[in-house]
Amino acid sequence: MLVLGLDPGTATTGYGLVANARSGVLAHHGHGIISTPAGEEPHKRLARIYDELSALIRDSSPDVVAIEELFFKQNITTGIAVAQARGVMLLAAAHADLPVASYKPAEVKQGVVGVGRATKDQVRFMTKTLLGLPGRPKPDDAADGLAIAICHVHRGPAESRLLSALSAQ
Amino acid sequence: MLVLGLDPGTATTGYGLVANARSGVLAHHGHGIISTPAGEEPHKRLARIYDELSALIRDSSPDVVAIEELFFKQNITTGIAVAQARGVMLLAAAHADLPVASYKPAEVKQGVVGVGRATKDQVRFMTKTLLGLPGRPKPDDAADGLAIAICHVHRGPAESRLLSALSAQ
Repeated sequence: MLVLGLDPGTATTGYGLVANARSGVLAHHGHGIISTPAGEEPHKRLARIYDELSALIRDSSPDVVAIEELFFKQNITTGIAVAQARGVMLLAAAHADLPVASYKPAEVKQGVVGVGRATKDQVRFMTKTLLGLPGRPKPDDAADGLAIAICHVHRGPAESRLLSALSAQ
Repeated sequence: MLVLGLDPGTATTGYGLVANARSGVLAHHGHGIISTPAGEEPHKRLARIYDELSALIRDSSPDVVAIEELFFKQNITTGIAVAQARGVMLLAAAHADLPVASYKPAEVKQGVVGVGRATKDQVRFMTKTLLGLPGRPKPDDAADGLAIAICHVHRGPAESRLLSALSAQ
């Protein structure tokens, strides 16, 4: 199973491709970011995200998309823009007929480090270690995309539960 | 100029088509809603919204899409879902090469009733009156879509200013 993990953003969306080649063994299949220029109109930025993500899905043929749930703190204006971007990412997955699993930030930490209150640094260290990479994957957004993909592999058996929880969202 | 007004929602998105046939004269070109079933997975609901809106744009050939800006009060979870839906609406506009104008709720009230603090009832009454309709357009979400389209016609001369303000969003 090849998992495409996505950490949604407007300016920068991180992605990571992780496969579980044999039970319990993770294989790194790439990572990167999708960027959009700040000066561009919102609907054009969304089209860019959709197009690049659709191309990535075509090129990498994942079996499932794992995507982080949004969590708003103070900046609701930024939050709306990121949610709009997340919407077109979900659409790209739907148009590619891929199942989607959604994870809260604490679930990603739990799924990678084993602790829901782990720091971002711990998550990135474990991501590097679990994938056997020589250094920390860069940039951080891409590392977060990999972490979300790892989380999905680790929580795989619970996937059907998560998908049905997602339907109720 | 034919304006497609959109009042974004996840379960129900209202739309209205309004043209300014001659200077100052508004013409009603239809209204309705795009609905998605609550039990369906989020990415499939978004695909349904995108598909139906794209079909509507193909069939009605508007010159511009006017869409309400989101304003979060308490329910941030609902707000995220609506923002995701708004994202795929902006994408449908981008894929149809249409310009997009975005209006805050108070701007819509101002643009239809002339008062930013007008009630929803006043906006709906003026929408019916300005379009010369025999009764209030139903359902309310569709009436709100018409109001957003009217707002854009009335604020037309300020459009370029709004579009550039939008780019900075």
